[in-house]
Order: sequence, then C-alpha cells, then structure tokens
Amino acid sequence: MEKPSLPSGTRDFSPMVMQRRKYILSIMESVFVSHGFGALETPSLENLKTLQGKYGNEGDQLLFKVLNSGDYLSKVGEDVLHSKDVKSLTPHISDRGLRYDLTVPLARFVVMNRNDISFPFKRYQMQPVWRADRPQKGRYREFWQCDIDVVGANSVVSEAELVEMYQAVFERLGLGVKIRINHRGVLDAFMGVLGNREDWNTFMIVIDKADKIGYEGVAKELQERGLEKALGAWDWLWKSKSVDGNEAKLALAASTEFMQGDALTKALNELRTILKLVAHSDNLALDFTLARGLSYYTGAVFEVEGCDVRLPADFRLGSIGGGGRYDNLTGVFGLKDVSGVGVSFGLDRIYDTMEAAGLFAGVGVNPQATLVCAMDEACLLFSSGVARALRARLPVVELYPGTPKLKKQLDYANDKKMGFAVIIGNEEMQANQVALKNLVSGEQSHCSVDGAIQIITAVGGN
Amino acid sequence: MEKPSLPSGTRDFSPMVMQRRKYILSIMESVFVSHGFGALETPSLENLKTLQGKYGNEGDQLLFKVLNSGDYLSKVGEDVLHSKDVKSLTPHISDRGLRYDLTVPLARFVVMNRNDISFPFKRYQMQPVWRADRPQKGRYREFWQCDIDVVGANSVVSEAELVEMYQAVFERLGLGVKIRINHRGVLDAFMGVLGNREDWNTFMIVIDKADKIGYEGVAKELQERGLEKALGAWDWLWKSKSVDGNEAKLALAASTEFMQGDALTKALNELRTILKLVAHSDNLALDFTLARGLSYYTGAVFEVEGCDVRLPADFRLGSIGGGGRYDNLTGVFGLKDVSGVGVSFGLDRIYDTMEAAGLFAGVGVNPQATLVCAMDEACLLFSSGVARALRARLPVVELYPGTPKLKKQLDYANDKKMGFAVIIGNEEMQANQVALKNLVSGEQSHCSVDGAIQIITAVGGN
Repeated sequence: MEKPSLPSGTRDFSPMVMQRRKYILSIMESVFVSHGFGALETPSLENLKTLQGKYGNEGDQLLFKVLNSGDYLSKVGEDVLHSKDVKSLTPHISDRGLRYDLTVPLARFVVMNRNDISFPFKRYQMQPVWRADRPQKGRYREFWQCDIDVVGANSVVSEAELVEMYQAVFERLGLGVKIRINHRGVLDAFMGVLGNREDWNTFMIVIDKADKIGYEGVAKELQERGLEKALGAWDWLWKSKSVDGNEAKLALAASTEFMQGDALTKALNELRTILKLVAHSDNLALDFTLARGLSYYTGAVFEVEGCDVRLPADFRLGSIGGGGRYDNLTGVFGLKDVSGVGVSFGLDRIYDTMEAAGLFAGVGVNPQATLVCAMDEACLLFSSGVARALRARLPVVELYPGTPKLKKQLDYANDKKMGFAVIIGNEEMQANQVALKNLVSGEQSHCSVDGAIQIITAVGGN
Repeated sequence: MEKPSLPSGTRDFSPMVMQRRKYILSIMESVFVSHGFGALETPSLENLKTLQGKYGNEGDQLLFKVLNSGDYLSKVGEDVLHSKDVKSLTPHISDRGLRYDLTVPLARFVVMNRNDISFPFKRYQMQPVWRADRPQKGRYREFWQCDIDVVGANSVVSEAELVEMYQAVFERLGLGVKIRINHRGVLDAFMGVLGNREDWNTFMIVIDKADKIGYEGVAKELQERGLEKALGAWDWLWKSKSVDGNEAKLALAASTEFMQGDALTKALNELRTILKLVAHSDNLALDFTLARGLSYYTGAVFEVEGCDVRLPADFRLGSIGGGGRYDNLTGVFGLKDVSGVGVSFGLDRIYDTMEAAGLFAGVGVNPQATLVCAMDEACLLFSSGVARALRARLPVVELYPGTPKLKKQLDYANDKKMGFAVIIGNEEMQANQVALKNLVSGEQSHCSVDGAIQIITAVGGN
C-alpha cells in the first residue's frame, strides 16, 4: 500500500494554521478595502510566453512548466528528441507554466483590460505563487504573495498611502515593525562617483550586504572588487545611517557636494513630500543604503522588517514586505507610459514572525463554541432541535454526530478547545431542559435553552 | 511586441466579479464555521502517485502534469525517447501534477495526520482544481470547488447537518433551490431485478438521463440495450417521482415487493431519520431516480439545483452542488474503515445561477464610499488629513492620487460607483471645511469633516 507524501517545498495548512493565516489575511483585506483597493485574481496557469524573459535567466530556470496534454510528442522532430537537450525539447512539449509572482499577471491583466479599467487602478491580490527553488527553512516552492498596487498614476500620494497601509496592517496585527524608505534617485546620484553603470551595479550589490557584513566588510569588498573610488561614498552612506531623524538625513543629502544633480533634487523632494503626507513616522526611517531590486524600481522603494520587543533576540528572518515605484509596468506587453507603485506583504514570513513573538494566543479560540451531546439515540431529534435553537443565537454550535459515551464526546469538545457542552439525556428531554457544562471551569448546571444562551453569551466571544 | 493572452479554459476575476465571488464564499464560510467546520488548504502540487489511479482512466488523462526541474532528460533511456510514446516517457519526466479535486487531498491529509486529528474531523476547503478538459460554456480548466466533509463518523446526524447547511447557505444567498436526496441502498435493491452488476450499471447510466430524454426515452434505450427485464422497475421509479411527499415515497418503497431486502430496509430507515432530523423539508425531496457517481458513494446521496422563480424559463445549468456518504475514503492510502460524508458547492455555477436570477444587485456597491479630491497640490496635505479622519469613521475612503481636473477625479468616483466626493480647494482649506457632493443625488453642501461624516453615515451602508 502506498504511503502518501507531499511534494518537497509544499505544505498542508491545518485548520489551526488556517485560522491564523485567515486572521492575518482578513486584517490585510479590511485595510485594503477601506482604502478603496479592489480584489483581483488571475489564473495559476499562464502561457509560458507571458512568463518567460520577465524574471531574468535565473527566474526562467525556476518556472514550473506544465506538460501539454494528449500526445505531446507527436509533433516533436526526431533531431530534437535525439539531442536529449531539455532547452530545445521543452518549448515543444510545454506551453504553460505556473504563476511566478503577482506583478507580471497584473501587467498582463492591465494590458488586456485597459479599455474597461478606470485608472488609477487600485488592486490587491492574495494568491499562491510557485518557484522551483531549492526548499529550505522559510523558503517554499508554493507560497503566498499579498500585493497592493496603484497603476496609472504618478503622484506620491500613493507612496504615502501604501506606507500608511503598512502601518495600519501591522498596528492591527499588534506586530512592531520598522519600515525603511529610499529612492532610486538617491542611489542614481552615486553614478557621478562610480562613473559607469557596471561599477554602480557592483556597488549596489556590495552595499546591500551591509546588514550582514558591516561597515568594514563592505569597505573591504569594495577594495577587493577594485572600487576604491567608491570608498568615500560608502563612508558617507554609512554615516548617514546614524544621522538622527528623517529631516536631518534629507538635509545631509541635499548638502553633500559629490552627489548633486536634478535627479537627486527630484528624489529628495519626493521623499520629503511622502514623509510629510504620512501622519506618523515613528516606525518609518529614511535609509539611503536600502537598495532592493533596482533594475525594476524607478522611484521610492520600501522594505519592512519585524522588530517587535517580544521577538527572541536571535530572531532573524529578513524583510516581511517591500516594494516601490516602477515606471514601465506594462511596456513589455506593448503598453507604454503606465506608471505604478506597489508593495507586497510576505504572508508566510509575517506568520512566522507573529508566531515567534507569541501574537497568536487566542486567535481561533472561541469561548462560546458549544457542543451538544445526546446521551442516546432517543434524544437525538430533541438534541438536534436544541442545537438549531442555540446556533440561531451563538457563533459556533455543533451536534456530535452519533451517541458514543459522553466522555468521548467531551474529549472531542476539549480537543477543539470549545467553551461549553450542552448535555441531553432522557431526564433533560422530559423536563425540556439541558445540562450545561462550562468546559473551562468545569461548572455544571441545569437550565432551559434560553438560560444556556444567556450563560454562554455572558463569557464574551471573539 | 507580444500580445498577451490567457491559457484556454482559464479566467481573470476582475474586482467586480471578485466582490460577488467573495460575497458567495463569505456566506458559505460563515455557515461552515457556525457548524464547527475548520478550514483546510492543501498544496496545488501533489505527487502524481497520490493522484493517479484515483479518478479512473479518463481522470488520469485529464491530470495536468508538471515537468521535473533541471535536466529532466538526463536519466531517460534512449529506448524510451526513441519510442516517442508519451505513456512511457511521462513517468520519467514528471513526478508532480495539479490537484484534480479536493477529496483525494483530504484523504491524503487524513492519513498523514491521523494521529493529530480529533475525529470526527469536520473540514471545509475552498480552492481551485485543474482538469485538462475541453473548455466549453460553464466548463473551465481551472475552477473552484468548495467542499465540506465529516470524516470518521457514521451517524446520519451528519447527513442531516449537511442538508441544513445547504439550506442555510442558499437561504442567505436568497437563491431558491431544490435539494434531491436518495440512497445507494435503494438503488442496490434493483440488483434483484437486474441480476448482475453489469446490467445494473447500465440501468443506472440510462435512468440518469431521465431529466433529458423523459420516460419514453429511457424506456426505449433500455429496450435497445436489451434490458427489457428492467422496464417494470423503470416504470416504478418513474411513477415514484410523482408521488406526493417524502413520507409517501418511503412507504411506497417499503411496500414494493420486487425490491425488498435488509439493505433496502436499512437505507429507508436512514432516509427516514435524515428527513426527521432536518427541520424544514420544503425544498428537500426524495428522488429514487437520483444516481450520481455510484461507484464512490455507499449511503445517502444529494444533489442541488437552482429553481428560483426569477431564473429565465430556459435557464439550464445542471447541479450546483452534490455529494453523499462514502465508506472507504482513505483505504487507497492504507487506512481502513474511515467513513465519511461530504457535499460540494459549485462556486462557478452558483455564481452563474445568481447572475441569471439577478441576485447580485447591490453586492459590492457601498453608498458610503467616499473620494477625497484635492483641487491643487497646495491642498494635498490638508486633504490627506481629511481622508484619514474620514477613514477612521467610514468604511471606504480614497484620496485621489494627484490633482488633475476635478472632472477627471469625479469620473473616477462615478466609475467606481462611490457615493460621495469630498472636494477641497483653497477656500475650504482656509475655512477648515469641505465641499461634500452626493454623487447619486447631485446635492452639494459645505460642512465640517464631522458634518460630512454625519451626512455620509446617514445614507446607510452595506
């Protein structure tokens, strides 16, 4: 007999885990909706020509490809088969792949529906994506992304709104976070020092490691890579990190001689406006060293990390969200000049962070949940009526399916962390009453159905 | 430039469609939760050895198979390649496939987690499934199933509960339905007349067409297939359909000589108990001709059809839900004697039926939704504060990103069917006021932010 298993890098989400995931998702969704974002869902299957060439060579490698149906070999030439070369064979036997992220499908949707969409198009999308990556702790082959984007507007009002939405979601989740913000224009200002795009790219890759290898580590690597010319810029960047306050940082950048230019001025103005529009900036910090996915972003960029006092000191998980402005979302599909800005919430990492901070206590536990237990078959019909009457007034009511020994029924209720059992035997049925047991305190009493509802309601609920 | 497209048989769900889908899903979910069902989600990717052999030969053909990663040809023998035979090649290049339904993943989950689950295990699961079927009207390659199952209990209390849950969901959706119920034991009672399983199977296939081809059509096909011996049984079945009332039907079956036996007696007793346990049977009808997926079910079976007075006379979509009891869910994975009962809600068909009946009017429209419009850049900061104050008290508040002409901003609000616009120019800002425009009535007034909240709240919301 086969022993079933799960594909590597995939997971089942049990009811307990699902309650917690749904708790996070529902808070996100309520914030998204209150800001006027609408839900979008796109198919898991996309044509490979939609996906390929959008994520770099490495991304193309990580796409899950779906075999064509039927006799998929019938039109494959002998030479292709004999070559035993997957690169030449794959395009003949696979036309579709699994969604790799939510951004390319958004771009495709916008292009295909541009005549029906009212721009600016504010959409949220919370769906799984698939990557044929090597699975490891915290990295899965099937995982969820939760994206919000504003497409077709270039006002930084949207950047400020997205920051406030980050703040609202994490405040409601009760999770302390630090939101870092930077601007592509600030980093571009270092082109003057670096001289060419290649060296600039290398510089970005190296300074991105600052969190891990520190000031000295970055300086050393810059020298090793022959970028001595950038040591001054790195020194400036490192020092800017410890300048207190976002205003002072802006002033520093505006007055630093070696990086001036119109692009910088525009970037600093945008940052200044965003910071003004955001009401509370306690957990929002300018960080000129933030350099994420730069080939993609053209304006402000964001990154969120958990930094909750309840997290263990050695807890490190990296960013739990990020995003930024991009000026050419749909160009690859033939629609020019569509600017957008978006951020992503990493559901799996938010979950892990909240779990590590102990923030799930009580989620999914309903002290009013009630199990109706019939002592024997003769009481079942009466008990089913009682369950129905209770359910009309209480959030969760179950009738045990069948009449095993009471202990077995109560074990079930306790396993599910239910708050009450309503027990019905012949005596109760004759008296049109129930025996009500509080499963937390152990207290037991006889009462009418209405009396039971009163007592159960009095404990409060979630 | 490539023109993007969707794979055949897949769909994008726009925000308007998503609001309606979420409306249906949330009503289902609230009913499921109130009956103590917990959410389960399983991966889209399953090992092919989990899926294959579970859905018959036809089902195996319809599985979407995912290409292995990397150099998937490296270990394939030359002979296999040269044979050009997909049946021999596929097992070498594909280990995983896409979920075909939610039942096999449930069975796999139960077997893998049997030591951690408290039985009876009541779970709901609402996720997409994939079938490489020929797409046609109402049939997709990626579509949603919504299943509820009670696993590990054999009391018909669960059958009654599932019927009541069907009733509760469709009542809350406001959609009139007819729920038909039958029992495998009733149909098995015709074995005496048919004589062997093969003829019995043929009989089931033919009577299943009664809705389409009528009494005469079935009788004719039975003769053509050499089943004259079954004409009397068919006559009985057809007449039983017009017997008024479930009790009378039970009495008819109990007294019909040619189909007696212990199995029938047990089946009729179970049906009698289920009908007693269900409080309202106005839309629940015994139908001894109901014969769905019989190789799988072992007890009661159900099927739901839309029959709403508001549906067009020519509206035909088939069942929008169905299910039944199965006695060997997990046997194929080595866990014996696990009985279960479950029903499914066909989200796509429920959607289409509700749309045809005109039941989506008002869904997703929020008369309190408000757009804050800044007349120029100088008003943006003030306007953003107003939007924040409004959002603290109203369900949906947007600040238009940017300051184009007012007409453009109002067009956006009207396109999104928002109820109000709050317009802020220099005068309003100086007076610490707003201009409030009711986008439905056209009325406009000047008021404070608190005044605006009062007026907007007074229209009521969803």
